[in-house]
Amino acid sequence: MSLTKLKQSVLEANLATVRHGLVMATFGNASGIDRESGMVVIKPSGVAYEDMTPDHMVVTDIDGRPLDNRYKPSSDLDTHTTLYRAFTGIGAVIHTHSTYATIMAQTLTPIIPLGTTHADYFRGEIPVTRHLTRSEIENGYVAATGDVIVETFKGRDPLEVPAVLVAGHGPFVWGRDTEEAILNALILEEVAKMAWHSQTLKPALKPIPDSLLDHHYRRKHGPDATYGQYGRGRGGS
Amino acid sequence: MSLTKLKQSVLEANLATVRHGLVMATFGNASGIDRESGMVVIKPSGVAYEDMTPDHMVVTDIDGRPLDNRYKPSSDLDTHTTLYRAFTGIGAVIHTHSTYATIMAQTLTPIIPLGTTHADYFRGEIPVTRHLTRSEIENGYVAATGDVIVETFKGRDPLEVPAVLVAGHGPFVWGRDTEEAILNALILEEVAKMAWHSQTLKPALKPIPDSLLDHHYRRKHGPDATYGQYGRGRGGS
Amino acid sequence: MSLTKLKQSVLEANLATVRHGLVMATFGNASGIDRESGMVVIKPSGVAYEDMTPDHMVVTDIDGRPLDNRYKPSSDLDTHTTLYRAFTGIGAVIHTHSTYATIMAQTLTPIIPLGTTHADYFRGEIPVTRHLTRSEIENGYVAATGDVIVETFKGRDPLEVPAVLVAGHGPFVWGRDTEEAILNALILEEVAKMAWHSQTLKPALKPIPDSLLDHHYRRKHGPDATYGQYGRGRGGS
Amino acid sequence: MSLTKLKQSVLEANLATVRHGLVMATFGNASGIDRESGMVVIKPSGVAYEDMTPDHMVVTDIDGRPLDNRYKPSSDLDTHTTLYRAFTGIGAVIHTHSTYATIMAQTLTPIIPLGTTHADYFRGEIPVTRHLTRSEIENGYVAATGDVIVETFKGRDPLEVPAVLVAGHGPFVWGRDTEEAILNALILEEVAKMAWHSQTLKPALKPIPDSLLDHHYRRKHGPDATYGQYGRGRGGS
Repeated sequence: MSLTKLKQSVLEANLATVRHGLVMATFGNASGIDRESGMVVIKPSGVAYEDMTPDHMVVTDIDGRPLDNRYKPSSDLDTHTTLYRAFTGIGAVIHTHSTYATIMAQTLTPIIPLGTTHADYFRGEIPVTRHLTRSEIENGYVAATGDVIVETFKGRDPLEVPAVLVAGHGPFVWGRDTEEAILNALILEEVAKMAWHSQTLKPALKPIPDSLLDHHYRRKHGPDATYGQYGRGRGGS
Repeated sequence: MSLTKLKQSVLEANLATVRHGLVMATFGNASGIDRESGMVVIKPSGVAYEDMTPDHMVVTDIDGRPLDNRYKPSSDLDTHTTLYRAFTGIGAVIHTHSTYATIMAQTLTPIIPLGTTHADYFRGEIPVTRHLTRSEIENGYVAATGDVIVETFKGRDPLEVPAVLVAGHGPFVWGRDTEEAILNALILEEVAKMAWHSQTLKPALKPIPDSLLDHHYRRKHGPDATYGQYGRGRGGS
Repeated sequence: MSLTKLKQSVLEANLATVRHGLVMATFGNASGIDRESGMVVIKPSGVAYEDMTPDHMVVTDIDGRPLDNRYKPSSDLDTHTTLYRAFTGIGAVIHTHSTYATIMAQTLTPIIPLGTTHADYFRGEIPVTRHLTRSEIENGYVAATGDVIVETFKGRDPLEVPAVLVAGHGPFVWGRDTEEAILNALILEEVAKMAWHSQTLKPALKPIPDSLLDHHYRRKHGPDATYGQYGRGRGGS
Repeated sequence: MSLTKLKQSVLEANLATVRHGLVMATFGNASGIDRESGMVVIKPSGVAYEDMTPDHMVVTDIDGRPLDNRYKPSSDLDTHTTLYRAFTGIGAVIHTHSTYATIMAQTLTPIIPLGTTHADYFRGEIPVTRHLTRSEIENGYVAATGDVIVETFKGRDPLEVPAVLVAGHGPFVWGRDTEEAILNALILEEVAKMAWHSQTLKPALKPIPDSLLDHHYRRKHGPDATYGQYGRGRGGS
């Protein structure tokens, strides 16, 4: 993808988080990576959403080293680049404080699959990280946030469960590109809202059967996907 | 009804689910049937709502056999046609993942009649299906979803209770035509929201008396309906 | 007030209930009375809100006898006229199924004064009626609804507590004129929402002290009101 | 700051409370102070928001004595001036009845820091005042409200925790200027909403570790702030 196009799509992803109500004030950031060149494009820090243009987007390499010094990158940059290095199949990362996903993160409540809304996008539980230690907080907090996400995903496929809840903080979500990451962030918030209400009404509720989870997930994803007009898994019902 | 008119009304029903916030992403589908010709019209799979025209609507017979091959029908087609075959009085079916109805479906909580808002549109409890078995899920899942709804309605009149909650999934709603089905889907979501809040505050709450349920239902439906200017039951208060 | 002006204000009150989200579908009705002539003006039954004009408003006497036969009045007319006969200081009545007020009515939960938002508009608890008997439901249900409200207000001043929750049904709200009744209906819904959330978090919560209730109520109402620019009590803070 | 500019910014702050849904009806007021001249500018009492112009803003000295007699000031003026005298670093005060902050005030529930959304703006618990005594309510209620806030902040830094919940009433929020106070009022409402939901799901939930609270707070505030393009702490992530 051209850098111009990547900057445009990262800008649009950042604006979409605000438009969809996932981000208030400046709580949030979106980035994208061009896997061929290894260039990462991320929101600048502290620029008002209404003023942002593609030119404000900051370009770094995959280790977060700036390739241009006009704007400071989002202060969460090191979390994004840590995820890009560890999860090689992903092309975009979005961080929000969307209300219900943040509530689940604050209460250290993993989002277990309670229905097919969840299963259509997330193949299993959306996990919560452990709390960072004092030492991790005080020494390289932002990179440590990325590390604890990677640690949480040991044994999980980040493309099958494209979101995590960082304890006491909020969600990070990803996807193969910015469009998919935004959709995942929207579905995550709805799934979190449903989970909160479901567990408040029925605290002992169990996940749906694995067979239902797998059947729904595979209708939309992977080689057996049957959705959409053109054989692509993301189309819908 | 002409096929042109039916396609238009099915398109409008699909757009209405989005406009009223009952459907996000592509979680949902609406269909209609012309009982004279037996033709079913349903949403195509994976076409974005903003791009849909009447021409995208897919036409099948009542067994779901396509009468035209330009677009793939919604992957939930077999649930719709199963309902049309079993519930001969209905003319439209709508499936959504509307938030509170889905929460009730996820928690396997039937919506009992707690007030006259419910009684005006649903003559009794809105039931939850049983979970499908592994074998049903793996062999003809979509048709099995229709079958389990029909099974749940043994001994119930689908025109008096025009909605069901599919366990771990979400609501299916119907009506004599697409307009009535949309209204039922909207009222269902409101009634589900009220039921969730009522039962969270007072878990042991009992349904309203049968006499109040029947009185309100009959004010709007059937031969004794007294609502509206022109003797039709659907007008309101 | 001229009949033309009353029809206009009753139309506006009906439209305001929809615009403010207090009424969905056709669940609701507003009326006004001209105390000099004794004429009552009320919403017609089953006319879509978007089509309503002042000419659709139905005129009756205070006993609900139509003074003109072009449109059928709201089916809740007899509740309105019962309130006008019993509560001689009121000039307008509004019935809605607004979400949280209806939830409190369904759960038979009086809204006790938990804060000054409540105290600014309602001098004490907003009561719930008893359930109607089977006989009352089957013989003159709508008038009986009015009667049970009047029964509930024995010993209460309807101008100091201008709302009631009808058990298993929803709120009726009133005021000296349509404008005040709409404001009371809006505040009632907000106060009901706050009460639901307060009591869910702290079930044993007690009302605010009487001295705080009275102080706030009297800042806005009655001879000692200190609000607004022109000595009128309804202005705000 | 010129008086003209201060009037304009106080008007905008009042309108912003309504636009952001923090204030319904006339439940709310915003003021600002010019520390050089000591002039306080506050919303007039009982003027409809849609009619307000900068000229309606009322000017008083720091003791609440009017410097111009065209409009009556907000009836909460004495609370504002008490805060300006006690908290010398603040430049603006906003009072709202925003839904969730008011619910926490009604239930006497301090908002403990449960996540970084809170920590980014409030360095620690947002406290609840004690209830006023009957004597305080009946003798100078509005000033007593200010006094009980000041009493609650003994040992706290009002710039580090720029909000309070007045028992049985609602929030007062402040900041170095009207823009910051509005932002704090918005974040407070979101943080209150998250706290309500978190504590309803997990009543025994503990605050986040102090190290995480401090780290996040200091990223945005004070000499070590690292946010934004220009070294100012308020920019965001």
